Amino acid sequence: MNSKIAILGAGGFIGTNLAQRLAGEVADLRCFGRRQDFPSMWQGLNWISGEVSGGEVVRTISGCDTVIHLASTSTPATADRRIADDAEFNVIDTLKLLDQCVEAGVSRVVFISSGGTVYGICDRIPTPENTPTNPITAYGVAKLAIEKYLAVYRHQRGLDYRILRVANPFGPFQTSRKGQGVVAAVIASALHDTTLQVWGDGRVVRDYVYVSDVVAAIVKSLDHTGDSRIFNIGSGKGHDVLQVVHAVEALSNKKLRLDFRSARPVDVPTSILDAGLAARELDWHCAVDFEAGLANTLEWMRAFEARPSGQL
Amino acid sequence: MNSKIAILGAGGFIGTNLAQRLAGEVADLRCFGRRQDFPSMWQGLNWISGEVSGGEVVRTISGCDTVIHLASTSTPATADRRIADDAEFNVIDTLKLLDQCVEAGVSRVVFISSGGTVYGICDRIPTPENTPTNPITAYGVAKLAIEKYLAVYRHQRGLDYRILRVANPFGPFQTSRKGQGVVAAVIASALHDTTLQVWGDGRVVRDYVYVSDVVAAIVKSLDHTGDSRIFNIGSGKGHDVLQVVHAVEALSNKKLRLDFRSARPVDVPTSILDAGLAARELDWHCAVDFEAGLANTLEWMRAFEARPSGQL
Repeated sequence: MNSKIAILGAGGFIGTNLAQRLAGEVADLRCFGRRQDFPSMWQGLNWISGEVSGGEVVRTISGCDTVIHLASTSTPATADRRIADDAEFNVIDTLKLLDQCVEAGVSRVVFISSGGTVYGICDRIPTPENTPTNPITAYGVAKLAIEKYLAVYRHQRGLDYRILRVANPFGPFQTSRKGQGVVAAVIASALHDTTLQVWGDGRVVRDYVYVSDVVAAIVKSLDHTGDSRIFNIGSGKGHDVLQVVHAVEALSNKKLRLDFRSARPVDVPTSILDAGLAARELDWHCAVDFEAGLANTLEWMRAFEARPSGQL
Repeated sequence: MNSKIAILGAGGFIGTNLAQRLAGEVADLRCFGRRQDFPSMWQGLNWISGEVSGGEVVRTISGCDTVIHLASTSTPATADRRIADDAEFNVIDTLKLLDQCVEAGVSRVVFISSGGTVYGICDRIPTPENTPTNPITAYGVAKLAIEKYLAVYRHQRGLDYRILRVANPFGPFQTSRKGQGVVAAVIASALHDTTLQVWGDGRVVRDYVYVSDVVAAIVKSLDHTGDSRIFNIGSGKGHDVLQVVHAVEALSNKKLRLDFRSARPVDVPTSILDAGLAARELDWHCAVDFEAGLANTLEWMRAFEARPSGQL
């Protein structure tokens, strides 16, 4: 394990899980972000507040071997509303960050890309990494542009990288507040007895991957030495929204009220990743299946919601 | 032919040629750019000065059916020096422009991409459009990102587009001053008896396409109605730098002095495009071969250089 690692965008869903996992293993772990979604989780950890484009990031990455870049200011649904702003805050700020990484002598950047959006609507399902990348959302293009720029930084400036094209992650520390995850939204509806908005007919299929598996993939990517630099991280299985609803209904013993809305043009009909390359190259395998992950998540969210302050 | 067309970045090499060609054919032709490289060519044409990101562009595209986007602030060699700035001035400014196009009700954007850089180092030569796009330069990534965003604007906002991945264009109105073209640099060395700097061993192979053919491809793309939206525009033939030098030496009856420098990491070894799709879909064919184009270009440059003011 590398001795000095910075996590950028550490305060969010994946970052909070990753920091807990790395806390005991990395000698010098620096956790950087705009804010902590779960402030109580950061006791005893080295937290630095700041923007990816700001001056604090220089101090954060100084002396680090590896920078894990999770920071993002948008979701697939929000990016398309203001495309230029989204590109500015995600693509341009990442380029400024990469310049700082080169300057600071960082060896490797691990970037979390979006397996659910970079491919767009494609024929090959499950989808392997060498499938043409034709996103239908600005969110997907921004991720893809960063991927392509990473290759240029390596070619021109010697900054190595690994890219994880993560499917739809779910699990503890994902909340429905940010509009991030279908699973979180469905569970929240069950716990709060609120109506669930469903875009389209509920047949949009996604590849849900449990967050501890995503964290495991990030850890594996830190030391990977092969020639492959882009890895799909997904379960290889698909569930549509109605299947998620029915699974949560069965676990929670509740019947959800659904409000079907018009389909959104940002949604590809089906996204299921082929993660065979990660299996071969990173020895990574999906350890938590959908049902077990969903049960864990429901349990976590119940405990989270039960706290008076809404904080763990 | 569409009745109202705006050319953005009209003052440069391709734009100047294109405006001359469209001048008599388009009822309302608006030529927009930061500056005119050849001021004397614009008499009688509708010229508007401005930046692509500025307010003047709104007035320029207002009421236009088609916007031809040639504006670019960098070259493959310059983009990599300041990658974030390059992305800001090219990608972000283009996104702001596309927002303006949607707002103004423009039907189609024709974008000139870079056939020589979007593919990167590839195995398939000549290279067809469906080859994986892995640029090794920031210039290529910026062009590719714009291509991908164009698809999103079409999908989400109904703005149609055509993309021409042009190989290495050469011909009249290309000068060596902007560091743009190998042919212009070689001819300038011959005319001025100056030493020619050659990066690497002179074996870098490029697909040179004469500018009147590029202009013809742009014209064909204005009305194209098929499903294909990305077309390679190249000759399908390769010449290395030393072959260009020898051809110019033979035409000019001079012997050039070469100064071999280190190879540049921005140069792919070989770029030759397969333009079969443009032949089938646009009925476009390379009409001017390399030798004829070179003779025309030498003649034009001699006449240009002979003017006391350095102006046509």
